[in-house]
Amino acid sequence: MESLIDVSKGDRPADLLLRGGKIVNVFTGEIYPANIAIAGEWIAGVGTDYTEGIETIDVEGLFIAPGLINGHLHLESSLLSPAEYARFALSHGTTTVILDPHEIANVLGIEGIHALINASKDLPVDFLFMAPSCVPATHLETAGASLSSTDIEKLLHEPRILGLGEMMNFPGVLHQDPEVLKKIRAAQKDRRPIDGHAPLLLGKSLNAYIASGIESDHECTRKEEAEEKIRLGMWLMIREGTAAKNLAELLPAVTPQNSRRCLFVLDDLEPADLLKYGEMDHLLRKSTQMGLDPGTAIQMATLNPAERFGLHDRGALAPGRRADIISISNLKGFNVRHVIKNGKVAAQGGKAYSFPRRHFDGAVLSTVKIKPVDEFSFDLDLKGENAWVIGLVPDQILTQKIRLKVKKDFRGKVVCSPEADILKIAVVERHRASGQIGLGLIRGLGLKRGAMATSVAHDSHNILVVGVHDRDMKMAVQEIEKLQGGFVVVEEGKIKASLSLPVAGLMSMLTAEELASRMEDLNHAAHEIGAIPKNPFLTLSFLALPVIPELKITDQGLVDVSEFRVIPLEAP
Amino acid sequence: MESLIDVSKGDRPADLLLRGGKIVNVFTGEIYPANIAIAGEWIAGVGTDYTEGIETIDVEGLFIAPGLINGHLHLESSLLSPAEYARFALSHGTTTVILDPHEIANVLGIEGIHALINASKDLPVDFLFMAPSCVPATHLETAGASLSSTDIEKLLHEPRILGLGEMMNFPGVLHQDPEVLKKIRAAQKDRRPIDGHAPLLLGKSLNAYIASGIESDHECTRKEEAEEKIRLGMWLMIREGTAAKNLAELLPAVTPQNSRRCLFVLDDLEPADLLKYGEMDHLLRKSTQMGLDPGTAIQMATLNPAERFGLHDRGALAPGRRADIISISNLKGFNVRHVIKNGKVAAQGGKAYSFPRRHFDGAVLSTVKIKPVDEFSFDLDLKGENAWVIGLVPDQILTQKIRLKVKKDFRGKVVCSPEADILKIAVVERHRASGQIGLGLIRGLGLKRGAMATSVAHDSHNILVVGVHDRDMKMAVQEIEKLQGGFVVVEEGKIKASLSLPVAGLMSMLTAEELASRMEDLNHAAHEIGAIPKNPFLTLSFLALPVIPELKITDQGLVDVSEFRVIPLEAP
Repeated sequence: MESLIDVSKGDRPADLLLRGGKIVNVFTGEIYPANIAIAGEWIAGVGTDYTEGIETIDVEGLFIAPGLINGHLHLESSLLSPAEYARFALSHGTTTVILDPHEIANVLGIEGIHALINASKDLPVDFLFMAPSCVPATHLETAGASLSSTDIEKLLHEPRILGLGEMMNFPGVLHQDPEVLKKIRAAQKDRRPIDGHAPLLLGKSLNAYIASGIESDHECTRKEEAEEKIRLGMWLMIREGTAAKNLAELLPAVTPQNSRRCLFVLDDLEPADLLKYGEMDHLLRKSTQMGLDPGTAIQMATLNPAERFGLHDRGALAPGRRADIISISNLKGFNVRHVIKNGKVAAQGGKAYSFPRRHFDGAVLSTVKIKPVDEFSFDLDLKGENAWVIGLVPDQILTQKIRLKVKKDFRGKVVCSPEADILKIAVVERHRASGQIGLGLIRGLGLKRGAMATSVAHDSHNILVVGVHDRDMKMAVQEIEKLQGGFVVVEEGKIKASLSLPVAGLMSMLTAEELASRMEDLNHAAHEIGAIPKNPFLTLSFLALPVIPELKITDQGLVDVSEFRVIPLEAP
Repeated sequence: MESLIDVSKGDRPADLLLRGGKIVNVFTGEIYPANIAIAGEWIAGVGTDYTEGIETIDVEGLFIAPGLINGHLHLESSLLSPAEYARFALSHGTTTVILDPHEIANVLGIEGIHALINASKDLPVDFLFMAPSCVPATHLETAGASLSSTDIEKLLHEPRILGLGEMMNFPGVLHQDPEVLKKIRAAQKDRRPIDGHAPLLLGKSLNAYIASGIESDHECTRKEEAEEKIRLGMWLMIREGTAAKNLAELLPAVTPQNSRRCLFVLDDLEPADLLKYGEMDHLLRKSTQMGLDPGTAIQMATLNPAERFGLHDRGALAPGRRADIISISNLKGFNVRHVIKNGKVAAQGGKAYSFPRRHFDGAVLSTVKIKPVDEFSFDLDLKGENAWVIGLVPDQILTQKIRLKVKKDFRGKVVCSPEADILKIAVVERHRASGQIGLGLIRGLGLKRGAMATSVAHDSHNILVVGVHDRDMKMAVQEIEKLQGGFVVVEEGKIKASLSLPVAGLMSMLTAEELASRMEDLNHAAHEIGAIPKNPFLTLSFLALPVIPELKITDQGLVDVSEFRVIPLEAP
């Protein structure tokens, strides 16, 4: 603190001086010329009277803002390692990311969370964590781990864990499930932030959800929903990710009076979207192009998330705050020029400087454990002629429950009808090699031959496979095991394309660029065997999520989501 | 939590329902009709669809707002006990008060703070505390106690202590006094709020003061000063008390963009002003009459202080927050009608319901310990003819250092010259009966006969006495000892008026009304013996404060404030 005060007082030159910029003051909304004097990792002074620096960066003509804070991200969806995400985010001006490691926790529990915490240590982006509140997501699937309220309590005492992650189990809150309430109380006891997840919840149910202690929501899809949630005291997290884009719908809910309660988040983002759009800078660009005042937009990515998460050491250009600073060439395009993290230039001109990386090892790299599958693993019995079939709805993650007449082979087993777009789908438990397989049928995916498999299948991340031929499905599942997780496309006995995701079966060690290109190849291969969705692996990844209506599949079988139970294939 | 959620969901009627009001939503600035359902101490639901209550209050036509939060108060200056202050504040809509028990700490240290914490327990107003950072205020006076950084650290672990109180020792911060920095670090370590006190501090010194970790200021007197402090990240506490009134000057600094960083405080308030103007409601009334948007004004007395102090359980009308709620008949006059604290009606129509009170006892009630004084205790020696004299400046707490020719008696001792308004002034150490007395002369007080004495003399609260005759001064001091603190007016050998302040020599057990009336008698008596200032005891109370220029007096003698040392009476 001593040398910081010396620089503030002007008794010592700054370690680093940013000279000539126009600062965006997030406390007042003003933009005015000021230099910034940095001492070590901290901002020592802001004002035109700071003119001496051991190092100086001329930022004449540039706008200077605090480093951006991404308030909610599932890193796993990017498929990137923390270091690789950091490299990317940093080059786009993000210096703090709040992670909810929900996916890896479903595979590896506390061990997985610790692996992510360790692999994201000492990077030039601060990764902070919310303890995942809903592992497993439901009792209708077999996850690799579960987190009890006792686990949550332990996690909350760890240094980089800020609070309780999105409470998706809103029925559990409303029905006062004791374990759910214990998790909330554990966070409340120490006044820790508690994130919510309550799509379409309104009225008395919403009041009850908030009364329990939940403070934010990132699942709003309509303006009126967002307004009601803000009025009732929730922090509105406006999400713009790969699977869900809510900015256009929600921005009209943001007013000068309520904007202090609003922040931007990404939630889930694919590598191709990161490359195409950027990180938080994308939200700044897009929101200002839609008419949001740039000062307000910057507040929603800096001061507001800092206040929401109690991160009073950052989020503003002020003495005593962390020297996390970006320069921007203009306030509409939001082209980030310099990125300073903890007082050091960490990226410039869209390129992050290299930094030491930590790696994953041990159990995290071998998580795919299955009982061997064979030709008969996907045999599907049916007494009558009609089956319940999962009906894909284009561009939606919800599905339909449809009743269809199906064909059988000489053994009396159900067979695919590619001509009618009826394919087999299976979820193979892959955490404990139990051999448990959920089997069903799907319409709307479009495969004409071969099979596709993935180990990214929300939320339990078992192996999900679809195909025309059992033999190709078997091969795809075996390949996923060999790769220890990933994406596979098989065509008539041959691996057509594949990508290894060895980190918990969810993440890669590749760069964002490599991954985006590999994903393009995979999608191309999937489209060649007939896949209809633009992003077929993303589509597959939601088919095992038994909280989105109407019909889903887990390793325990077909799940009727509205009845919230496993149902037989047989349709009466 | 269970019954709270039941009421939220509508499965149980509210314990208390507020029906028909228009709520002031501090998150959005909107005002709209909504009922409020309360379960126990908490708000369960807000909305027109809550219609069932075991008890119901009809608030048709009234505005409903959160209970007011006073962000900074020295309770001791009101002379009132916590219970009596609570009765008063409550009737004006205040449900939370943040105290800095700086005065009692100067008398009794930690014991004094604990006495205040205990006496303010379980009242229908929440008294929360900041640990006083500067006890004693300077080394030029003898206080009853001192608080080290170790003491502060201990205090910060106590349940109702929120953070570190106003750091008045800004030179200590700037010169990096290790004890000062340790106190700040102790609070920073646990991310506790740290209040500031930095009149006129600007530029690099202000940057350094803020860089050290100090987060707020309530000493701004000019708009530009307030603007600079907000820009640099300080919370602006706009003060309107008895001795200092800054609202008119500072309100123009508040903008729609920066108002989230602004809050109202009272700091110091006399009982007569409380009765005349009210408590926080006075600031709401006055600021809106000056043109501030009422919604913003209410935010500055509710949500903003709640956020500044991390009190996320209050400050808004939202589910899960404490049911601290007021009704107001109109948004200009701010006439508070109902006050609900923790879900119970605690005041109505300007009258608080009675509640159990705790009392002070033990050491707190016997703190005035002096070595006996006699006729010669106030003998004033001078070699030459000229003395340094404290020159009062009307309506200011600063004084002038003036050089005057004085008269002597047959023994060669200096005597008063009431015809020239030159009086004797003395500060008698009263914590350890050391017999230490600081002696001097004062011009501008106006006494023609008799003497006045007080045990309220910032910040060490020794006995300050002024008079025309030594004999009356002696009597006044002896009377203060007999009363164990208070105010005394003596006229020619007789106690003309007195008030006992037995709680640490600072506070009374009387009601606000009784006190105001007794103070009126005292002021009247003082005016009768010639006192010029409107509020002569208030004037006296600042004469021992050696941080306000130019010439002050402590038990150690005359203090030249600009030289920050004790000087002799002798003027060259």
